[in-house]
Amino acid sequence: MQRDEVQAGWIEDGRHVLPLRVYYEDTDFSGVVYHANYLRFFERGRTEFIRALGIDQRALHEAEKVAFVVRSMQVDFLLPALMDDLVRVETNAVEMRGPALGLSQSLRRDATVLTTAEVLVVCIRAGRPCRLPEALRAAIEAAAS
Amino acid sequence: MQRDEVQAGWIEDGRHVLPLRVYYEDTDFSGVVYHANYLRFFERGRTEFIRALGIDQRALHEAEKVAFVVRSMQVDFLLPALMDDLVRVETNAVEMRGPALGLSQSLRRDATVLTTAEVLVVCIRAGRPCRLPEALRAAIEAAAS
Amino acid sequence: MQRDEVQAGWIEDGRHVLPLRVYYEDTDFSGVVYHANYLRFFERGRTEFIRALGIDQRALHEAEKVAFVVRSMQVDFLLPALMDDLVRVETNAVEMRGPALGLSQSLRRDATVLTTAEVLVVCIRAGRPCRLPEALRAAIEAAAS
Amino acid sequence: MQRDEVQAGWIEDGRHVLPLRVYYEDTDFSGVVYHANYLRFFERGRTEFIRALGIDQRALHEAEKVAFVVRSMQVDFLLPALMDDLVRVETNAVEMRGPALGLSQSLRRDATVLTTAEVLVVCIRAGRPCRLPEALRAAIEAAAS
Repeated sequence: MQRDEVQAGWIEDGRHVLPLRVYYEDTDFSGVVYHANYLRFFERGRTEFIRALGIDQRALHEAEKVAFVVRSMQVDFLLPALMDDLVRVETNAVEMRGPALGLSQSLRRDATVLTTAEVLVVCIRAGRPCRLPEALRAAIEAAAS
Repeated sequence: MQRDEVQAGWIEDGRHVLPLRVYYEDTDFSGVVYHANYLRFFERGRTEFIRALGIDQRALHEAEKVAFVVRSMQVDFLLPALMDDLVRVETNAVEMRGPALGLSQSLRRDATVLTTAEVLVVCIRAGRPCRLPEALRAAIEAAAS
Repeated sequence: MQRDEVQAGWIEDGRHVLPLRVYYEDTDFSGVVYHANYLRFFERGRTEFIRALGIDQRALHEAEKVAFVVRSMQVDFLLPALMDDLVRVETNAVEMRGPALGLSQSLRRDATVLTTAEVLVVCIRAGRPCRLPEALRAAIEAAAS
Repeated sequence: MQRDEVQAGWIEDGRHVLPLRVYYEDTDFSGVVYHANYLRFFERGRTEFIRALGIDQRALHEAEKVAFVVRSMQVDFLLPALMDDLVRVETNAVEMRGPALGLSQSLRRDATVLTTAEVLVVCIRAGRPCRLPEALRAAIEAAAS
């Protein structure tokens, strides 16, 4: 990375890795990260994963009215992340079928898994499910191999 | 409700109902509620449910070091909630076993279910799981009957 | 209020009053409300103030492409709000000039002022400042008198 | 930066620079960054500025019960930041007096200033204002020269 870049992560062993820092805004008065904020971390991971695959979500939305929406999530909160922690979001695609993209995500501090999420994302065009864009399918297959 | 009360909801047919309004802060640039923010709504619902049962979480924490933490959630995002929407969080207890409290929650706009969550909450004392407080168990059983 | 209404506040002595509850989501690990979250409370207050004046922001936006944006804020954080606190946002208009609406807001717990904000909102149509809608001007003048 | 580091920014010409990315979570349905979320960006900038000066806030809090709280902010929202934008938070100390640290902050996209904030932070020990830690004063003076 150049000094002035933001951390966008990288793809390694078929999965995307995004390091991030826990700030005040992420915690609650129990002293640890507020449970809903792990979903913000996972969403940053998915956004950077798609960007790393060479897909420009904003362009896709403007040119083809295509957007990705979360249809369901199974989240397991195993151990808390703390203020100032350095953590990593790991994201990998586990299934592609029609409009659906299944992702497996985890948040780790060093080797310790803090939270996991199984996420089902659906591709939408003009309010209706549509087949995943071919460029995305090809890029995911290339990254996984 | 008195004019100067906040909306804390009520228990009806064994489940807690909390009406709330969608504000700017809840939405994202896709035009609808940001997915992680549904978890904030569900957490408000759980907080008011426990308050409605007569349990004071702050006192419980101060007196007995007891806290409730979310261990897992299965969330289904069926339809979006929109800016300015009036919605309702419905919460009911579906299981109590040792330290674990299972809750079923939904977010509705009128009769339409927008999002559902199956939530597992665990009671913690000094960092370790502990049996649900007897007052909470009794109040949940009384509310359900 | 009816039992199933949300708390939208009321106008009293020329100012709008909105009671609200502090939840987990509002706090940070210092144990009190995270400073940026007071701005969410103030924004809810402004939204309900405008609604109480009979102005429908969504309709205004759809029909006339008119929106209100915050141009500047001076915020003084005097005392912290705590988890579970019942607080009130008070909002009153202090100036109307061309496209600009000046508002004075405070957050109180009982008689104690916790935070104050002087807010300058500007009316925008298609990206450019436009004169405040006449219905809004008239409603603000009527509320103040 | 190493590949696996998070972006913590750097000090340049006496001011701290923190690049960051705008995500979904930061925007609202108006299509741009929600006004309160600029305060989260500024807080990240202050946190990284203090870290870059070699001060460990968590250790300071644990060892000496010292914390920094925001007492007031003047925020000017000049131009909106957009989804996916790469922006920079710039932070510099402008005044130190007793317990008070005055900071001037801005958010920029390339050379364009989007938002500015004048922030007054106060050092607190056990709930009361206390003189800024000597290590912080010395580090700020060294960075400015």
